[in-house]
Amino acid sequence: MTIANEFYSQQNHGPFEYFELGDFALERGGRIPACRLAYTTLGTLNARKDNAILFPHMFSGTSKHMQMYVGAGLAIDPARYFVVLPNMLGNGLSSSPHNSPAPVAMGDFPEVIIGDDVRAQYRLLTERFGIEKLELVLGWSMGAQQTFEWAVRYPAMVRRAAPIGGTARGTAHNHLFVANAMAMIKSDPAWAGGAYREPHAVSAGLRLLGHFFAQSGLTKEFYAREQWREIGFNSQDEFLAGFWEAWFAPMDPNALLSLLRKWQLADVARHTGGDLKAALGRISAVVFNMPFAQDMMFTVDECRAEHELTPRSTLRPIPTVWGHFGMLGLAAED
Amino acid sequence: MTIANEFYSQQNHGPFEYFELGDFALERGGRIPACRLAYTTLGTLNARKDNAILFPHMFSGTSKHMQMYVGAGLAIDPARYFVVLPNMLGNGLSSSPHNSPAPVAMGDFPEVIIGDDVRAQYRLLTERFGIEKLELVLGWSMGAQQTFEWAVRYPAMVRRAAPIGGTARGTAHNHLFVANAMAMIKSDPAWAGGAYREPHAVSAGLRLLGHFFAQSGLTKEFYAREQWREIGFNSQDEFLAGFWEAWFAPMDPNALLSLLRKWQLADVARHTGGDLKAALGRISAVVFNMPFAQDMMFTVDECRAEHELTPRSTLRPIPTVWGHFGMLGLAAED
Repeated sequence: MTIANEFYSQQNHGPFEYFELGDFALERGGRIPACRLAYTTLGTLNARKDNAILFPHMFSGTSKHMQMYVGAGLAIDPARYFVVLPNMLGNGLSSSPHNSPAPVAMGDFPEVIIGDDVRAQYRLLTERFGIEKLELVLGWSMGAQQTFEWAVRYPAMVRRAAPIGGTARGTAHNHLFVANAMAMIKSDPAWAGGAYREPHAVSAGLRLLGHFFAQSGLTKEFYAREQWREIGFNSQDEFLAGFWEAWFAPMDPNALLSLLRKWQLADVARHTGGDLKAALGRISAVVFNMPFAQDMMFTVDECRAEHELTPRSTLRPIPTVWGHFGMLGLAAED
Repeated sequence: MTIANEFYSQQNHGPFEYFELGDFALERGGRIPACRLAYTTLGTLNARKDNAILFPHMFSGTSKHMQMYVGAGLAIDPARYFVVLPNMLGNGLSSSPHNSPAPVAMGDFPEVIIGDDVRAQYRLLTERFGIEKLELVLGWSMGAQQTFEWAVRYPAMVRRAAPIGGTARGTAHNHLFVANAMAMIKSDPAWAGGAYREPHAVSAGLRLLGHFFAQSGLTKEFYAREQWREIGFNSQDEFLAGFWEAWFAPMDPNALLSLLRKWQLADVARHTGGDLKAALGRISAVVFNMPFAQDMMFTVDECRAEHELTPRSTLRPIPTVWGHFGMLGLAAED
C-alpha cells in the first residue's frame, strides 16, 4: 500500500513533471516497476542544445530547494541556461517507498545508489531533451555526490563540475555518521520496520534526526555567535523547534532512510574496482571543488584529498560559520 | 525502589569506600538524604598533608578508570603522592538514581551539578583526611569540569590544576551535543520516563548512545586509518559492538542521564553572576590546560579561549588521532 503524504505535492514542490523510466533495474540488484523521475526545468534549451545545466539536490531536499539559486541576479541565470533540476529516486517526489505500490512499497523498497540516480538523469536528459553535453553539473552534499558520479560515469558529457560540500566517496567516519542518522529514525517504535500506516507517525524519530543534524551540520561558532538570530529566531531552542524539527516533521521516514542509505553507499570507485584515484582520474571536466570551511560532515581536508586526485580541479573553500549548511548562508547573501 | 545492577560492584570498581555526606543539599535545589560518596585512595598521606592529588573521573567512568594512570612508572606515582579518586554523585557507585531509595529513587533523583560534587569532595578531603591543600587536581572531560570548579571555588586550596580535554563552561554547541545524547537514551521506550524495573532494559537506547559517542569522540582520521586495529579489533563494526556497545551496555541509564545533565550544566561562571572572565580570574593555581588535537567535543579553540582568561595558565594541546578519547591513547602509550 502507499501512504498519502500531502507534503510531497505540486503545491509545495512544483511545478514538476514526471519522466517515465519504465521497469528500472538497480545497480545493487532489484528493480522499481513503473519507475518515475520527477523533475523541473527552468530557462530554454537552445538550438545547439549546449546551454544545459544539471543541478541535483541534497539530502531531504527536492528540486524546489535548488530552484532558489536559479533566477535573474542569482547564481544561475535561466535567461542564459537551460537548468534541469532532477529529484532523486526515494526523495518523496520521484519513485519512493511511500508512493510505490507492491512489490516495492514501504520497507520493501530496494536499495538505490547514486549511480542509479545518475543513470536515470542521463535517460531524462538524452531521451527527453536530446542533450549530449552538459555545460555544468553542480550540487551540494548529496548533490555533490551526484556531481562526482556524473563526471566519472559520463566524462565526455560534463564540461564543468562543481561539487559543493561533498565528496566522491564517503569516509569511514561519514559512514558512521549516516548510520547514526538512520538509527535515530529507526529508534522510534512507530517506524515499525518501515510499516507505519500514518505518514507522520514517526515524529519522535524525525525530531531526534533534526536535532542531530542541527548539531552536526552547523559549526560551533554558529551557536556561540547565536547566528540563528540572523534568520529570525530568538533562542537556540526556538531554532531547533522552528527550523530543524519543522524541517523533517512533514517528511516520509522511509524516504529519508532511502536517501541516507544512498548517501552512505556513495562511491565513484565502484567504477574502478575500488581505486579512487583511477576513478577521479577519469574526469575530464573542469572541476571546482568547493568545501565549506568548518564543515564537520565533509571537511575541507577530506575534499582536498579528492581534489588532489582530480586532474583539472581547483579547490575553493567557502568561508562560512554555517558549516555544512553554508548553502543556506549563501542564500541569505544572495 | 532501587534497581540492583551487578555492574557497580566492588569486584568491578573496587576496592572503594564510602564517605557519608548525610542529608546533602544540592545547589539547584533538592537534597539527597543519606547521601554517599564512594572513593578510593592510593599512596599515603604524609605528615604535613601536603602530598595530596585529587583525580576525579569522566562521564560514564568511576574511580577505577582513573586508577590506571596511577602507579610506579605511570603518570602519577603513588609512592610519592596520596591520590584521592572520588566517584561523582550519580555515577552508579556514589548515591545515584538506581541505588537511592524514595524520595529520590530513579526518575525522582534531583539534578546534581559539578558544584555539588566538588563540595562533597571538599568535605571528604577536609573532614576525613584533614587535607587543606591539594598539590594537584586533574581530570579528563567531566573530570576537567570538576578540576576547573575546584580551582575557581577553592582557589587557596589548589596549587596546580590540569584540566584535560574539557572546559570550565560548556559552549552552546556542547549543550546541544549533550542534549542529543540524553535524547538517545530517552528514545528507547523501555526507559519509560526513568521507571524501568530491569537494569538492562534500555539496551537499544544505550546502543544508540554508544554509536553516537563512537562518532563524536574519536577523529575522522582515527577511522580513516582504521586505528581500532591498534586495540585489537578487525573491523569498524566489531569496534562499535565490542568497544562502544559493550562500554555502555552494563550501565544504568538514569545514572548516565544524571551525569549528562550535570555535564550540560557545568559552568564556573555561576560563582560570578555569569562572568566567565571573572570566574577564571579567581584561579590562583598554576594551570596546565590540555586539550586534545582534533577533539570534536571540546576543541582546542574552545580550550584556548578559556586559557586566555586564566591567570597562570599554559596551553598544552596533546597531539593524538584519538580526539576526545586521547586518554585511551595515552593509556596505550603508557
